[in-house]
Amino acid sequence: MEGNRTIHAALLGAGTVGNGVYKLAAQMREEIAQRTGADFVIDRVLVRDVTKEREDVPRELLTDDWREIIEDEKIEIVLELMGGIEPARTYIREALRTGKQVVTANKDLLAEHGAELFREAQENGCDLQFEAAVAGAIPIVRMLKKSLTASQLTEVMGIVNGTTNYILTRMTEDGMDYQEALRMATELGYAEPDPTSDVEGYDAGRKLAIMASIAFQSNVTFPQVYTEGITKLTAEDIRYAKEFGYVIKLIGMTRLEEDGIEVKVHPMLIPEQHPLAAVRDSFNAVFVHGLACDDAMFMGRGAGKMPTASAVMGDVLDVMHHILSASCGKVKSSYDRQLPVKAVSETKSRFFLRIRVTDRPGALANIAGILGNNDVSIAQAVQKRSRDGVADLVIITGPVWERHFNDSIRILEGMSVIRGISGIIRVYGN
Amino acid sequence: MEGNRTIHAALLGAGTVGNGVYKLAAQMREEIAQRTGADFVIDRVLVRDVTKEREDVPRELLTDDWREIIEDEKIEIVLELMGGIEPARTYIREALRTGKQVVTANKDLLAEHGAELFREAQENGCDLQFEAAVAGAIPIVRMLKKSLTASQLTEVMGIVNGTTNYILTRMTEDGMDYQEALRMATELGYAEPDPTSDVEGYDAGRKLAIMASIAFQSNVTFPQVYTEGITKLTAEDIRYAKEFGYVIKLIGMTRLEEDGIEVKVHPMLIPEQHPLAAVRDSFNAVFVHGLACDDAMFMGRGAGKMPTASAVMGDVLDVMHHILSASCGKVKSSYDRQLPVKAVSETKSRFFLRIRVTDRPGALANIAGILGNNDVSIAQAVQKRSRDGVADLVIITGPVWERHFNDSIRILEGMSVIRGISGIIRVYGN
Repeated sequence: MEGNRTIHAALLGAGTVGNGVYKLAAQMREEIAQRTGADFVIDRVLVRDVTKEREDVPRELLTDDWREIIEDEKIEIVLELMGGIEPARTYIREALRTGKQVVTANKDLLAEHGAELFREAQENGCDLQFEAAVAGAIPIVRMLKKSLTASQLTEVMGIVNGTTNYILTRMTEDGMDYQEALRMATELGYAEPDPTSDVEGYDAGRKLAIMASIAFQSNVTFPQVYTEGITKLTAEDIRYAKEFGYVIKLIGMTRLEEDGIEVKVHPMLIPEQHPLAAVRDSFNAVFVHGLACDDAMFMGRGAGKMPTASAVMGDVLDVMHHILSASCGKVKSSYDRQLPVKAVSETKSRFFLRIRVTDRPGALANIAGILGNNDVSIAQAVQKRSRDGVADLVIITGPVWERHFNDSIRILEGMSVIRGISGIIRVYGN
Repeated sequence: MEGNRTIHAALLGAGTVGNGVYKLAAQMREEIAQRTGADFVIDRVLVRDVTKEREDVPRELLTDDWREIIEDEKIEIVLELMGGIEPARTYIREALRTGKQVVTANKDLLAEHGAELFREAQENGCDLQFEAAVAGAIPIVRMLKKSLTASQLTEVMGIVNGTTNYILTRMTEDGMDYQEALRMATELGYAEPDPTSDVEGYDAGRKLAIMASIAFQSNVTFPQVYTEGITKLTAEDIRYAKEFGYVIKLIGMTRLEEDGIEVKVHPMLIPEQHPLAAVRDSFNAVFVHGLACDDAMFMGRGAGKMPTASAVMGDVLDVMHHILSASCGKVKSSYDRQLPVKAVSETKSRFFLRIRVTDRPGALANIAGILGNNDVSIAQAVQKRSRDGVADLVIITGPVWERHFNDSIRILEGMSVIRGISGIIRVYGN
């Protein structure tokens, strides 16, 4: 490939993903040249500690001086793989202002400050690519952007956190309780020592904010996403769900309604025959529904060194094509609308719940009456077992406004015949 | 977008897909310009009958003279959407020889003459893109090409024919027999008046030839693919499979082994919890497994006007980027190796089968002995029912050489105690 143009890049961060990207870029060197007609070279790698040995990155490329990179006119692409809000946010902004193209895997940053950074990219005529920020090896960003061209998307839903899906799979298939499954996930490295961000649905919530923004071309930030984690789910909930033909998954979903955007993360009963029910272990999957296009689903690894590196390199190839065809920054920013995000109480869901009730005549009629008075329709109701004069009543509602449902639960909780309400979980479908 | 470069194209064929592409190209006009920095214009549309009214293509673009297109130096991209072997093959070859880029949706042509056309493209430094030839809206070609960069693929399997998947879904979920389900598929337009190519597995076989070629960078043609259709499957087979926790699907699979490539299409028992078991109705799905990368699956519509048009336009965007960055024909042809394709008898499978046998002492031991002597191990054997002195024996074998299995079946068929062998279907797993 003599006489090829060379495109120079810098990595910010040499953690797991940074090392993976360096390694993959070296492996793909020849192929990149064949595909793009240009060589891709990583000149500098920004780290905090230049003396620390790295797995794949040679020490002579390391620097702890950001100015060395930002002031180097040869460097056309900055790959931000350091994570966190600052200094990543400042570095990306400065890189864009000096006309460098940026590829980032930084979910936390985009879920909070995406709009500002995309505006910056657009004003400077630069690319800001972020496939790896959403679901690792699943090319969901590309899919959402492409789907937009052919049809208006109306709904995106999926399993976008591998840790919680692993935990739920163990609970479902091996009958483990939550703590036991979490312990196993931690031992296998699927869960971090502090699992809060995963098990409370925050990680999924950040991904949903980004996906909603792309899908509906409107700025949605993480604090606007309703999140409910899996920490309260019990083995019993899962068994009950199974009896009714459902599997419990932590689902992120976003929908475009006439009066705004719905975006929530919560456990959900998924019918056993739905493709998402078959997504097991630490796999992720995203399901897309559009007005003109049909349903499509992509399943794959949502995290990990090489899957994430591969998403980053996919973005690099796109950016290289844009540089070589002088079309950087030409893709319309997806964040330019400001549609309202609906409060969760103003959205509709179906609910599954279990009520322990004193087993005496009229109890069911009483409960049904209260639900009915609050516009909560009952799709299915089964009295499960009666022991010591206490019956277990399992109810699946029709689609109801969440505030109506909450009102009726508050009233039921005040009734003397009711011993307890548990396992309140949303149900797929309408 | 003043002063934009304009890229001119011609369509060959104005059938369903041709009209879809024309329509989508018009809808995407502004976006294409934003993404690539160039305008995309379809100048001419080659048809047999220029007087016939078309759904989306304006009549003034129609021509029945190929020379008008091939000799027009302005036209840089030819979109071949006419189908069939000739004259498509000649037109593509001539287009490549005059330096035009080609996008095709022609599965039949590539499955037989792919290697020759890719060589032609490479020799002329041209692109020959074909995403729409494989699985409609599922971007499997792109996925296979990209996966290659990160890891050696070892196995690709999937449901790549919507008609047969629809028929099998009706048989499984509604208890229909084959003829009834086929009739329903025909009424709904999922099956063509002559369904042979779908139900005998030929359509899937052509797609497998193309996918194997890309996945293993080796030339595989349709005649090398073993195909077995779904016409002999009965509602009883499906019920039996279900009893054992399986769903029957028409599966295409290709594997890279040390001594060559396996590539076959046949009905298969898939465990209920496998993601492919959840692919219902006319959906397609492709499952990829690699040495370094993990499992990934994509599910979506495998056919239809707009899904196919959208795959074609995805290719057009890539070609435009290549034209603008002067990197056409730089992607290595995937067909340059000539690995042997193994005969199906030299591959291993697990089998499910039902044997009707005279119910007398020693019959099972006898059958087990014959299987054992032929190196056919039994993973599961259940005697199902006995009526009028005849028992139904259901056997699932371990992974066995297909020739050994066939030998043992021939011997069993000669035994006087055996009344019949039916429902011989391959089983997923090893």
